[in-house]
Amino acid sequence: MGKDIAGKTLEAALEAIARLRRDGAKLHTITNSVAQNFTANVLLACNVTPSMTVSADECADFTARSDGLLINLGTLDAPRRAAIAASLIAAREKNIPFVLDPVLCHISPLRAEYAGQLLDHSPTILRANADESKALAAKTSGKKIPCLVQTGPVDIISGETEKWRTENGHPLMAKVIATGCAQGALMAALLAHAGHPAIAAIAASLWFGVAGEIAAKSTNGPGSFSPAFIDALYRTSVKTIGQMGRVSMVQ
Amino acid sequence: MGKDIAGKTLEAALEAIARLRRDGAKLHTITNSVAQNFTANVLLACNVTPSMTVSADECADFTARSDGLLINLGTLDAPRRAAIAASLIAAREKNIPFVLDPVLCHISPLRAEYAGQLLDHSPTILRANADESKALAAKTSGKKIPCLVQTGPVDIISGETEKWRTENGHPLMAKVIATGCAQGALMAALLAHAGHPAIAAIAASLWFGVAGEIAAKSTNGPGSFSPAFIDALYRTSVKTIGQMGRVSMVQ
Amino acid sequence: MGKDIAGKTLEAALEAIARLRRDGAKLHTITNSVAQNFTANVLLACNVTPSMTVSADECADFTARSDGLLINLGTLDAPRRAAIAASLIAAREKNIPFVLDPVLCHISPLRAEYAGQLLDHSPTILRANADESKALAAKTSGKKIPCLVQTGPVDIISGETEKWRTENGHPLMAKVIATGCAQGALMAALLAHAGHPAIAAIAASLWFGVAGEIAAKSTNGPGSFSPAFIDALYRTSVKTIGQMGRVSMVQ
Repeated sequence: MGKDIAGKTLEAALEAIARLRRDGAKLHTITNSVAQNFTANVLLACNVTPSMTVSADECADFTARSDGLLINLGTLDAPRRAAIAASLIAAREKNIPFVLDPVLCHISPLRAEYAGQLLDHSPTILRANADESKALAAKTSGKKIPCLVQTGPVDIISGETEKWRTENGHPLMAKVIATGCAQGALMAALLAHAGHPAIAAIAASLWFGVAGEIAAKSTNGPGSFSPAFIDALYRTSVKTIGQMGRVSMVQ
Repeated sequence: MGKDIAGKTLEAALEAIARLRRDGAKLHTITNSVAQNFTANVLLACNVTPSMTVSADECADFTARSDGLLINLGTLDAPRRAAIAASLIAAREKNIPFVLDPVLCHISPLRAEYAGQLLDHSPTILRANADESKALAAKTSGKKIPCLVQTGPVDIISGETEKWRTENGHPLMAKVIATGCAQGALMAALLAHAGHPAIAAIAASLWFGVAGEIAAKSTNGPGSFSPAFIDALYRTSVKTIGQMGRVSMVQ
Repeated sequence: MGKDIAGKTLEAALEAIARLRRDGAKLHTITNSVAQNFTANVLLACNVTPSMTVSADECADFTARSDGLLINLGTLDAPRRAAIAASLIAAREKNIPFVLDPVLCHISPLRAEYAGQLLDHSPTILRANADESKALAAKTSGKKIPCLVQTGPVDIISGETEKWRTENGHPLMAKVIATGCAQGALMAALLAHAGHPAIAAIAASLWFGVAGEIAAKSTNGPGSFSPAFIDALYRTSVKTIGQMGRVSMVQ
């Protein structure tokens, strides 16, 4: 039974990828200064049009025309906090889904506290690695978050009732800065084309993981891996993602 | 007759490129945070030395020693507005030409208004795509701007009396973030070596477009295109740019 | 005799590289916005985990858990000055060594003055090119700085009593933005694994220079050089760095 459901999940994820490639999406992308350029190139390769201003004055206009919103807390500072506040208001008014990525919140207590406040704004997806999840455990428990994604060598995607694991990827991905940040952005862009947040998260995870495996085959290190990865995101067919993608239900 | 004039224009553009490669230029480059790194690498490949601080305290010193100034309005925020003000004062004192690039001003009314104010400072070149041009139409009409560049699949360059079109380029250029921003920066650097602003704009358009066509031949997607494009900017001879470049007068 | 000492220095530098590759290091990296992404990728390739926030609120927490600190003055602004102050306090409390890189301080008098103030906080290494060194000459004279590195086609590394030169590298390194900035960051990361600051500086210089020579062999310009350089940092064996590395005592 689990295998059939996994098959249907994979199918739904592939459909979301195919739709994004066909129809595109606009993403207002509040992310850290280190990740901006790479994230923008990843998004363009996946047929997403990013806007990246973190000026509070402009964030409402840019968010209101978008299909999704990413809030990534890397290099968090006062202007970014003001930008996030403005974007959240616009997102709520227009019913725009958002992904919260509380990067390194286990190191900065201030960032963890702020991430906790953002949870009250009902993120559609919360993405965090094991350390970050732990730092937020007290704040997430009891809150209804439609989709929790714990990233790592294996990604664990928890919907409201079901739990999935995806197992693609390559160690070189951790040697290129901001791959995790860019994956969070891609999830946010896929929300517009997926029936359920967990499907968007699974689609992003498979697309990234398969592209990483393909890119690693032709490269000699993290420097050449980075452009090969973007090429693979751009070129790998939905069929290949379906053949190589490994998703299963967690019992 | 048009063909002869086009030939002379091409010759003048090639001469500007050759001079920049021989003598270099310093460019104070106020650009958005997403574009900074890529723009700097494009400029270095074209023999331009960029400075990129957006701290108002330092902008006068950096601008005053430059041959040109770029004002790109992406990720516009309060510090950038203060930096632009300081740079414009220094540019006026030293008679340094500047390019205004009102990125995405059709989405943010605030940005369009600010761009309108900057038009009063007499930019040497205004670069904008079709949407941005439209958003600024009311503000540009009646203003004497030495050179208007409308970028797109084809670039339209309007001098005070003549109008040109350049037709080189490749669709992958739109899949790498900040190629348009970097082209605006290159125009600004070429101003120091061109007899007329339109020649600088045409030279930048041809150099970029030809390099894009060459880079696309050896690449598999936007990831590998990006370094190949910078290599092509660096290596393509003036002769090849002349042979491949397509510029014509608009009747 | 000089040759024997040079041999021992080389050996010590290679050991620092081997240790960093084996044990890693955490570096809080305050650097300019243009250099952030490239520097992060260089550091990851060298087994260093960077954090890059320049928010003063968070800098103490990030610095306190680090093995070293980089203070690079490019794109210096008020938030960066506040971040540097917070990081310096944490670094002093925890006895964390830091590298000061006063980028372009010969152009901005304000930046030179500020760099002078930072010298009172006893940087472990001061890295500067010839122009920057000259701008700071009055401020450094009489100050006891454990290691001065003057970078250029040849790097000159001055310890308290001895002086060294390293001669590896390739002209394409100057055509990729932020290679110098990234070298300063690598020095800071190596401090945790080197017996003396000069050994960290020499190790960074040789690692960078040899990787640059290797990368240049397989590339067509600065665009392809950049990923090849990161690959070479990642892959080149300590043995090869030892064979190709050229370090000698300055009499």
